[in-house]
Amino acid sequence: MVLDELRAPVVLAPLGGGPSTPELAAAVCEAGGLGFLASGYLSAAAAGERIAATRGLTDRPFGVNVFAPVPGPTDPAVYAGYVDRLAQWARARGAQLGEPRHGDDDFEAKVELLARDPVAVVSFTFGCPPPEVLERLRAAGSEVWVTVTSPREAGRAAAAGADALVVQGGEAGGHRASFEDREDVPVHGLLALLQLVAARLSLPLVASGGVATGGALAAVLAAGARAAQIGSAFMLCPEAGTSPAHRAALATDGETALTRAFSGRLARGIRNAFLDEHSERAPVAYPEIHYVTAPVRRAARESGDASAINLWAGETHQLAREVPAAEVVGELMREARAASAAAAERLPG
Amino acid sequence: MVLDELRAPVVLAPLGGGPSTPELAAAVCEAGGLGFLASGYLSAAAAGERIAATRGLTDRPFGVNVFAPVPGPTDPAVYAGYVDRLAQWARARGAQLGEPRHGDDDFEAKVELLARDPVAVVSFTFGCPPPEVLERLRAAGSEVWVTVTSPREAGRAAAAGADALVVQGGEAGGHRASFEDREDVPVHGLLALLQLVAARLSLPLVASGGVATGGALAAVLAAGARAAQIGSAFMLCPEAGTSPAHRAALATDGETALTRAFSGRLARGIRNAFLDEHSERAPVAYPEIHYVTAPVRRAARESGDASAINLWAGETHQLAREVPAAEVVGELMREARAASAAAAERLPG
Repeated sequence: MVLDELRAPVVLAPLGGGPSTPELAAAVCEAGGLGFLASGYLSAAAAGERIAATRGLTDRPFGVNVFAPVPGPTDPAVYAGYVDRLAQWARARGAQLGEPRHGDDDFEAKVELLARDPVAVVSFTFGCPPPEVLERLRAAGSEVWVTVTSPREAGRAAAAGADALVVQGGEAGGHRASFEDREDVPVHGLLALLQLVAARLSLPLVASGGVATGGALAAVLAAGARAAQIGSAFMLCPEAGTSPAHRAALATDGETALTRAFSGRLARGIRNAFLDEHSERAPVAYPEIHYVTAPVRRAARESGDASAINLWAGETHQLAREVPAAEVVGELMREARAASAAAAERLPG
Repeated sequence: MVLDELRAPVVLAPLGGGPSTPELAAAVCEAGGLGFLASGYLSAAAAGERIAATRGLTDRPFGVNVFAPVPGPTDPAVYAGYVDRLAQWARARGAQLGEPRHGDDDFEAKVELLARDPVAVVSFTFGCPPPEVLERLRAAGSEVWVTVTSPREAGRAAAAGADALVVQGGEAGGHRASFEDREDVPVHGLLALLQLVAARLSLPLVASGGVATGGALAAVLAAGARAAQIGSAFMLCPEAGTSPAHRAALATDGETALTRAFSGRLARGIRNAFLDEHSERAPVAYPEIHYVTAPVRRAARESGDASAINLWAGETHQLAREVPAAEVVGELMREARAASAAAAERLPG
């Protein structure tokens, strides 16, 4: 497995929607971890270009994350009221909304691309594709990882033939990877979820959600993970594509919250005016609402208006440092070794 | 510190409201951990009897948990509608409700008792008493620990002079220890919270919430905690006072949820009919609602009707085993040592 060959058990989170760059992925690879590219919100062709660019920067293995198709389209009755509300909000600010639409984020074309021109690891978010898709990618030479948020999803991914599971705790920034986004789906803490999944399955686990220090890296390894998938701690790196306003917010102590306000799917971001004003009314309607708010978010990013940006961030974002990715990996490893040794001392035989 | 003298970095959670017994506390002490008694929902005199009983079972140090006084009384307008709703529910079932009332759970008398007849550790839940109270208990020879659920609460407890902090993640069963129970108070995952608190303060930390395996014990030590406070994993022990219906529920895969339905204060329990039916409408009104539902819960415990019991449980309750407490501690330590060694191997120097 790719995990066995890493010098550092650190997997870059995909960081779709801006922060993901070939430079960041390659820097994590060169530092001994596993770089990842997001393909979400990109066409298959654009994803292909980023894969090629990453190959130009590193010879090491890296991964590509793909959004599994979500059910839909959503009944417009579910989101019409929310769109009206957003339209009022937008009118008051002279802002522009987009049209609600469904889509599968170019899924088939991305699978086609990755089967033709494989990368070391393909990970899925928002669900587990059918076994045939997993088999096709594996036949092409890739490992297939599936992101899960509950023991039940872990069981489904294992049954479909996943090679490894990315276990996402509620601490994670950005979208929850849940197979279904429902009001009553439980949100597990990472450490609890690792224990529950490890008790049922022997698949390799990659722990994701709020890991920002070497102590937490050593912690998830002790809890049975083979590596940690880390996002926010890399978002201030010069190699990341994080927007300036988003960078400024990450560096504050701003509280995060789970919200559907920006996309119609549950995601964790730093609280701002848009999140606080709209979260309570936001429906389950992804990607329809994503497309409705896209122009608002784009304009806000461009003008540096943090109050209307989806400031995706994990619960420990304030621990991120503005240093090159190689330094983040090096520091995580140094801290993790010290933390692991200190823990062993508290466990006398 | 008491933590330095433990053979096992395992602190029993207080487990108020039934499961706490002198026998369980003493068994954890004798196994090398730190036993704890709950004083919540007991009179000071009853708490004193349990302290004496525990001393009769072990010579080792143990702790007593005390509820800090909560603000109030709550304006009846806040909970009148909910009480009406419960009254309707109760009428349909021939059940009996109690009267809403405020109270401080005999706080002054408990502090008096503990100052006169000190135990090794006094921990507080629901807030941090004034520095004078902490000083008084310390002068009597106790360490004072304060349970916190956010970096801000950790800062307040440190400023008041706490000797150690119990850091409670959202995974924990039973009541959230938050200083204030508000709708918008964030719920942090344990691993995230440990990192955030450790980054600000150098006080000794005890990690609480969903730790049920040796892997998770080793994990929280690696994340900087000096010990784990463990509740659900001890609730099936023969020494625990857990009711039969509660035991049966703990042994299932039942999902937990946060709810104010039973007590008017946020707490984690296994979902059942009462929780699902009332959570959405339950107000912030503690301990008023606790007293309203007390007769319902008591009757349900006695008749073994799990649908109306507050089935407090952490997110990993299904990993609890029905073995003596000494065996739980021994197994946690064996697993933790193995987990710690395995983690170190994944962190090559």
